[in-house]
Amino acid sequence: MEFNGFMQAALDEARKAADRGEVPVGAVLVSPQGEIVARDGNRTRALNDPTAHAEILVIRARCAELGSERLPGHDLYVTLEPCAMCATAMSVARIRRLYYGASDPKSGGVEHGARVFTHPQCHHVPEVYDGIAARQAAELLKEFFAARR
Amino acid sequence: MEFNGFMQAALDEARKAADRGEVPVGAVLVSPQGEIVARDGNRTRALNDPTAHAEILVIRARCAELGSERLPGHDLYVTLEPCAMCATAMSVARIRRLYYGASDPKSGGVEHGARVFTHPQCHHVPEVYDGIAARQAAELLKEFFAARR
Repeated sequence: MEFNGFMQAALDEARKAADRGEVPVGAVLVSPQGEIVARDGNRTRALNDPTAHAEILVIRARCAELGSERLPGHDLYVTLEPCAMCATAMSVARIRRLYYGASDPKSGGVEHGARVFTHPQCHHVPEVYDGIAARQAAELLKEFFAARR
Repeated sequence: MEFNGFMQAALDEARKAADRGEVPVGAVLVSPQGEIVARDGNRTRALNDPTAHAEILVIRARCAELGSERLPGHDLYVTLEPCAMCATAMSVARIRRLYYGASDPKSGGVEHGARVFTHPQCHHVPEVYDGIAARQAAELLKEFFAARR
């Protein structure tokens, strides 16, 4: 499955999150062998956990499965620019590549605000690829927030 | 219990973390009524979870207990300057005040690097008090890393 397929899987997780009443962001984690090994959407409400963003959930799930606190060679696909919490989690987990969809000027921490990966205090920096299926990811979010008003 | 007592409790948790072979950082969470309602130290190794920093663990524990993804009126005491992941977690959890001990030029994200609380992408900023029992916190870390060399 090429990277478009992985982002479509992340978009599926975002749609499922929206159906649960969660902010529609989805993430998938791909192993060094190119298989999807974890996939989830935001669950902050369902889990009563403000850290339960899609990215954190897939990292924690895969680390638990492997019995490791690091995921070398793993790539993370997420529909929205990660916040500073999730970007830092990717760094400490040693994620190889980050692919994301829509830009998030309001809460993002990669190309906006904290710009986590640009500081020497960040000891591992993934390769970052942005703008993948960005329009679809942005529309999901727009529909979700429009429906709630 | 005044704030020195809370930081001493956090230092106790840091010592227990060191005894477990974890990086010696400890945190306690104090309710609006002034009671310690969660306390823990780093557990990234024991839990195989790169996000299991002391601060994240106490936030997650208290949120689970209250059935809420927000902790208004709660104060967090931690022995070391939080990284960008933990600082952002405090923001999304709506922590009222952050008290921390030693400064962390190498990995900190509050007064160093990402400076998470200084950007408009951070939608809630706790009051921050630093340098509390800083010498003790720094010595714990120094001893820990010296013993492992």
